[in-house]
Amino acid sequence: MKYKAPKGTRDFLPEEKILRNKIVSTLKNVFEKYGFNPIETPALEMYNTCTAKFSAGEGTDVLEELFTLKDRADRIMGLRYELTFPFARVIANNPQIPKPFKKYQIGRVWRNGPVKLGRYREFWQADVDVIGSENIYLDAEILALAQEVFQKLNLKTKIKINNINLLNEILEFYEIPEKLKTQVIISIDKLEKLGKQKIIKELTKKKLQKDKAEKILELLEINDLKIIESKIGKNKGIDELKELFSALKKFDVKNYEFCSNLARGLIYYTGTIFEVYLENSEITSSIAAGGRWDNMISKFAGTKEKIPAVGISFGIDVMMDAIKIETEKFDKSIAEVFVIPIKEINESIKIVNKLRKSGIKSDIDLTETSISKNLEYANSLGISKVIIVGPKDLEKNKVTLKNMKTGKEKKIELNKIISELKKE
Amino acid sequence: MKYKAPKGTRDFLPEEKILRNKIVSTLKNVFEKYGFNPIETPALEMYNTCTAKFSAGEGTDVLEELFTLKDRADRIMGLRYELTFPFARVIANNPQIPKPFKKYQIGRVWRNGPVKLGRYREFWQADVDVIGSENIYLDAEILALAQEVFQKLNLKTKIKINNINLLNEILEFYEIPEKLKTQVIISIDKLEKLGKQKIIKELTKKKLQKDKAEKILELLEINDLKIIESKIGKNKGIDELKELFSALKKFDVKNYEFCSNLARGLIYYTGTIFEVYLENSEITSSIAAGGRWDNMISKFAGTKEKIPAVGISFGIDVMMDAIKIETEKFDKSIAEVFVIPIKEINESIKIVNKLRKSGIKSDIDLTETSISKNLEYANSLGISKVIIVGPKDLEKNKVTLKNMKTGKEKKIELNKIISELKKE
Repeated sequence: MKYKAPKGTRDFLPEEKILRNKIVSTLKNVFEKYGFNPIETPALEMYNTCTAKFSAGEGTDVLEELFTLKDRADRIMGLRYELTFPFARVIANNPQIPKPFKKYQIGRVWRNGPVKLGRYREFWQADVDVIGSENIYLDAEILALAQEVFQKLNLKTKIKINNINLLNEILEFYEIPEKLKTQVIISIDKLEKLGKQKIIKELTKKKLQKDKAEKILELLEINDLKIIESKIGKNKGIDELKELFSALKKFDVKNYEFCSNLARGLIYYTGTIFEVYLENSEITSSIAAGGRWDNMISKFAGTKEKIPAVGISFGIDVMMDAIKIETEKFDKSIAEVFVIPIKEINESIKIVNKLRKSGIKSDIDLTETSISKNLEYANSLGISKVIIVGPKDLEKNKVTLKNMKTGKEKKIELNKIISELKKE
Repeated sequence: MKYKAPKGTRDFLPEEKILRNKIVSTLKNVFEKYGFNPIETPALEMYNTCTAKFSAGEGTDVLEELFTLKDRADRIMGLRYELTFPFARVIANNPQIPKPFKKYQIGRVWRNGPVKLGRYREFWQADVDVIGSENIYLDAEILALAQEVFQKLNLKTKIKINNINLLNEILEFYEIPEKLKTQVIISIDKLEKLGKQKIIKELTKKKLQKDKAEKILELLEINDLKIIESKIGKNKGIDELKELFSALKKFDVKNYEFCSNLARGLIYYTGTIFEVYLENSEITSSIAAGGRWDNMISKFAGTKEKIPAVGISFGIDVMMDAIKIETEKFDKSIAEVFVIPIKEINESIKIVNKLRKSGIKSDIDLTETSISKNLEYANSLGISKVIIVGPKDLEKNKVTLKNMKTGKEKKIELNKIISELKKE
């Protein structure tokens, strides 16, 4: 191949793109049913916007993976690596927007990172956020929306929930110095992946006493709020989690569990944090994740006014992978009917015009190909119904309808084609 | 503003994005009704892919506006400036695809050009193409699809049609040297914009004799195929146009006209060319355009085999501008109903759960705001129906439904909310 797609990017032919479109339209439908409105931001962002959130001390791994480029006036820009910071910029720039503001954005993001299985340089995210209120009911509504997304896609999932304030209170309880806290949380985030022993090693390397590290990790094995409360006492994190669990009941959210060692690597979370995992799947990475981030927008706006936010980000590529595992056969074409003219091109075009007018997705052979090749073509695309328009049938004002799955054929009157197709 | 969107790019808030989504879903629906299947290619392309089509001699204006960037292994890439060349690459790389292949792609493209009214650095295109057949019926089907797109969007348009072979035959008739032909066609493309006198000047500068230039432009004022045929004789271009016009009749395409001076600047066209314009509009630039391009894909594939193609590209931003002119009021929210709890948060959540389950796009106040502020909020978003859930109504198993347009209120029984909303 002389011309290739860039490393870490992919072409999607109809077989995959039809499935991707189905996922995206399911997401859109659920988001809008929950009253979230669409927005769109550019793929390009100014370099200072791309880097703004890192000045707060967040790890700069993402920044190392920023694709940069210049415009004709040598302004440095980056390709967005997520949809969160562009949204924070938009809100900061548009104080006139009525709050609460419920928005979603679905789009591509880019990371100039190493390419491996399931990791691409160009991929899609779908972000849903509501800003302007600290009310925990909004956290619950986001999780209700997530539950419905996965129900609609027939994916069995479990939501793991924790609260960043609880983690901080636990570290406080064990008297972890302020400057170490973030580092400890980053390590805890890797607990499930690396195991207890490795994390204890990592924590002692980070200058935590071994017995403290052990005690903290022991506590984080307890996934029962009451027991944790009995050990470290009442606190903000526990209160918020209790409120959240009560609100989730009202929204009929069922498949969730409290998970005290869920940490999320990102330091901008300020309350609820959660990750959604597939149940009984070979895919072990999270399929959606999010939480409360009450501080970032104020930073972009440069105000002291609090602009609270809670949201979720769906990974469209991992959802796609999960659905592919469950799916046996993919549609290769959106066409429901294929019209094959046997010489009778005029009548065939009339028929396809009518089909399309009635909303039936229809294709037609306009290239004077033989009937056997046409049937092969319809078959290779998985089009299930074929209408054959030949002179003998037409004399009786009829056409032949062939079901490509069963192989059965029947003659239908011209004026009954649409009712017949809609019946099937 | 500390953080701005890059020059030539735009943020779309719900008011605009809802409208853009409507345009895109109209396009998708029509494309799929005509049997075209979706594909997706990366935003990034390798530099050699971006430049491949220019080696054939096409003007390199577009190339000067290419955004370039590097990956971590210093490979040079560009942001795609159109959807055509990436499609040609995909077809060249996937010879297994059954032909004819009918595809569409809707996505962003980028050009690092000067920014002026209506010209952006990031914008959207929607491309529809069918490859694998030279049959002129396919050209007609593309124009039928275009006609339906604009009907569905309530935009009055006229399609201007010409044929690149006819232009070449005319130049042949006047004995224009081969090496001058492309230059002359590029000048003719500007005729409508600059006027006859300026083009004659331009042509003489390009070393064409003045009397020849005048004769050519005189002929190009005739928009009647028969008269042109009587002057220059029968030829391939005229035959193809006659066939096309006959095929358009069969597809019920009406709003078109033959336009002998339509030239399209791009040299890769090989037959039919067309541009779609708005009628009675202040927008004078074309809103969609395309034609037959039978040679480019073979070049990408590096084969001598002909891989014919015909297609159209819709400019989503100019369509958006046209619709905005016609539209008085924009939806600021997709929500159909807004539920306002007066203390009764539990019952309100139950109601909104039910509404959403029944498919009604619903929002709810979860922030314990006052009723007057909530009504103001619903009003500012243009949500037309509000359900007020208060203790007095609930005692009688009722809620209040308020129509925000008329101001009228009525009491509805709890179990009749959905039927009442669907009735309205």
